[in-house]
Amino acid sequence: MKNILIIGAGRSSSALIRYIYKEAVKHHWQITVTDQQLSLAEEKTRDFDGIITAALDVADTAQRQKLVSSADVIISMLPPSLHINLAHDCLILGKHLLTASYVSPAMQKLHEEAKQKGLLFVNEAGLDPGIDHLSAMKIIDSVKQKRGRVHSFKSFCGGLVAPQSDTNPWGYKFTWNPRNVVLAGQGTVQYIIDGQYKYIPFHKVFAHTEQVHIPGYGDFEAYPNRDSLSYRSVYNLQEIPTMLRGTLRRPGYCKGWQLLVQLGLTEDSYTLEGSSRMTYREFLNAYLPHKPDISILDNLASYTGQEKESEAIKLLQWLGLFEDTAIGLANATPAQILQQLLEEKWKLQPEDKDMIVMQHLIGYTIGEDEYLCTSSLVVEGEDATYTAMALTVGLPLGIIAKLLMQDRIQARGVVVPVTPEFYEPVLDELAQMGIQFKETEQEISSVK
Amino acid sequence: MKNILIIGAGRSSSALIRYIYKEAVKHHWQITVTDQQLSLAEEKTRDFDGIITAALDVADTAQRQKLVSSADVIISMLPPSLHINLAHDCLILGKHLLTASYVSPAMQKLHEEAKQKGLLFVNEAGLDPGIDHLSAMKIIDSVKQKRGRVHSFKSFCGGLVAPQSDTNPWGYKFTWNPRNVVLAGQGTVQYIIDGQYKYIPFHKVFAHTEQVHIPGYGDFEAYPNRDSLSYRSVYNLQEIPTMLRGTLRRPGYCKGWQLLVQLGLTEDSYTLEGSSRMTYREFLNAYLPHKPDISILDNLASYTGQEKESEAIKLLQWLGLFEDTAIGLANATPAQILQQLLEEKWKLQPEDKDMIVMQHLIGYTIGEDEYLCTSSLVVEGEDATYTAMALTVGLPLGIIAKLLMQDRIQARGVVVPVTPEFYEPVLDELAQMGIQFKETEQEISSVK
Repeated sequence: MKNILIIGAGRSSSALIRYIYKEAVKHHWQITVTDQQLSLAEEKTRDFDGIITAALDVADTAQRQKLVSSADVIISMLPPSLHINLAHDCLILGKHLLTASYVSPAMQKLHEEAKQKGLLFVNEAGLDPGIDHLSAMKIIDSVKQKRGRVHSFKSFCGGLVAPQSDTNPWGYKFTWNPRNVVLAGQGTVQYIIDGQYKYIPFHKVFAHTEQVHIPGYGDFEAYPNRDSLSYRSVYNLQEIPTMLRGTLRRPGYCKGWQLLVQLGLTEDSYTLEGSSRMTYREFLNAYLPHKPDISILDNLASYTGQEKESEAIKLLQWLGLFEDTAIGLANATPAQILQQLLEEKWKLQPEDKDMIVMQHLIGYTIGEDEYLCTSSLVVEGEDATYTAMALTVGLPLGIIAKLLMQDRIQARGVVVPVTPEFYEPVLDELAQMGIQFKETEQEISSVK
Repeated sequence: MKNILIIGAGRSSSALIRYIYKEAVKHHWQITVTDQQLSLAEEKTRDFDGIITAALDVADTAQRQKLVSSADVIISMLPPSLHINLAHDCLILGKHLLTASYVSPAMQKLHEEAKQKGLLFVNEAGLDPGIDHLSAMKIIDSVKQKRGRVHSFKSFCGGLVAPQSDTNPWGYKFTWNPRNVVLAGQGTVQYIIDGQYKYIPFHKVFAHTEQVHIPGYGDFEAYPNRDSLSYRSVYNLQEIPTMLRGTLRRPGYCKGWQLLVQLGLTEDSYTLEGSSRMTYREFLNAYLPHKPDISILDNLASYTGQEKESEAIKLLQWLGLFEDTAIGLANATPAQILQQLLEEKWKLQPEDKDMIVMQHLIGYTIGEDEYLCTSSLVVEGEDATYTAMALTVGLPLGIIAKLLMQDRIQARGVVVPVTPEFYEPVLDELAQMGIQFKETEQEISSVK
């Protein structure tokens, strides 16, 4: 009996397990789900008969290799840094490996060896990276087949709350790892637009937003992701004059977040002396100039160049940053203090649903004619378990695992899913499950 | 014959060598000056008969220890990271060591062993750190002797050009390591004022300036140094409600520099693709929003919230950032490109003189009465060799070396010069050489 091993039974594994279970029943495959916490693996597989569960300490090489040796395909839902040990196991034991994480330099080095051994290590096979690659490459390839030239690629993605759960002025709740949200955008953003490089330092990133409209879902704004330039080679668009990737938020969010960044409240490199005795108001005040004669609100407004009544300042007030509530965290970094506050204010309620939004805007020319292809995806979560995030991260991995079990993928080595043998069947099957891009093609009058 | 070994014959060693030479003649000491480049050691000692010179590769342990073993006191003018190997040599060979650098954690660990062996390792014995410690502790101790309580300590220092050489709108030329100036202020600034902690992220540091006035030399402005909080324990003022250290510039500089920082032009963590083919105008444009329909000047002004005619924007224009001059540096970081431009525009001319400015503002109470002590130092360079920087860094080291040769220092171990046995004789002798603080004492009417 063929065996699929899923390592990691966290939030993002629910939809993957449900999908793989249905396929396994059809094809008589064995599934094993492991996690550091056995209870998590048991909870996630409770509704599905016949799945084997096991506790796995991934640092225990013998135990890990024993599990790997019994499987045909391994899906790693571990944190990115833990994939590499599994990849070495797979090389030794001759197994295929799937992850939703970016290809690390260490992983990339295994390409030739994996290829020679006839093994496939697919990475970046979740949502972002994952569905973005699949859907973008399908459009890019179709343009090339029409002898067109892609001159502009913009792509945006965001994990948000569904409209009915969008109940606070930030238009945001934590549907994913809060720490990643608080630390988002660190480092210098790099992209290219009309042939001009843009380098945006972290403290300005959330001031560089683009408006995005999704039919039926209204307006969003996108802040640029750290690295857009490297996608030129991933998508084989080396000479493209415009390449920009960004993260979607509801309008207003970025102005509020920009204010937090500007003040320094998202820093994680040092701890505050006496943070355990501070209130949130004192915390905010520690980032303002020393002006004892004016109010903290006046001080904030003049320091940041905002109107006192501005939306951004109201967003900070709504968070409770002006309130004399005790923080109660010792030796905390600013980012940790902010995260504690946000986890309270942006908490996803049990009845809340999340939502994934993605949009590609691909400009191209065929001969003298210029076109814009707009391709949009919205996925709402089913409930608190089968979230939009879990569906969109887990299902591409599940479908690729199935294709691999059925010998329908020829690629070998360390691979990112950008070729037709991936995007055709995966996008088709996602569409059957309701995860479908809506495309509009628009002819632009004036050629550049 | 007693022997003093000076390691490193760079720009900051000139005044040290001249001073030590005069003392050596009086006291019949031998001096040895070494440098990686023998020619540098020879050039710096050309005017002084009887000094031994040698080439020294500090990575060559045998050669280093041979030189150390022949000396009684070693003065290290090496870059900070290279002191520690010398310190180990001194422990093995039983020698005293002097440096002008901050005590590193590795150096601090040697305290007990050095003390047990009867050795003195004096660090932070130059200008800043150095003269700042000596002069501040003299005032702080005198307040304590009067049963006063210091409640506010502010101290500022800057290496600038002398007034007659101050010929550009920035009021600044490179009198010291340009790279350190370009990277100044990185990290989060921490200080305390009226009992309130202040944490200023790097991108806001140059917007947090204080006005400083030096009688006879006019106005300056100070931006806060990275770490003021640690000086509370160095100066034994643990409970002080106001502790702020800063760096002095001429008025206007900080607004211009803040603009460069805000844009991201001082970043050193990544290289620009195609920097060799860029002009300075394109470099500036890479940090502005993509607005092809407005001028680069309008774009800069609206992006940074400046008036087009503002002094800060004029400072950037004066640097040539709007000009289509080729950069010609391949794979350069923004900081490297900016440094190349500044080295041309802020070049110290052969006839230019430098200037060191320092001011302490020490607030204290005695009983019900409140006082402010203002202590200011200005040192102008003699010429391009005996610069104010070389005088103020080298002379305290030289005087302490002399005192040590004469057995007039009792302290042993790893030490910072904050006690009377250092500050009394060193400040007295500096004053005899014209390096003298001017103190004013002012009674403040209202007690806090």
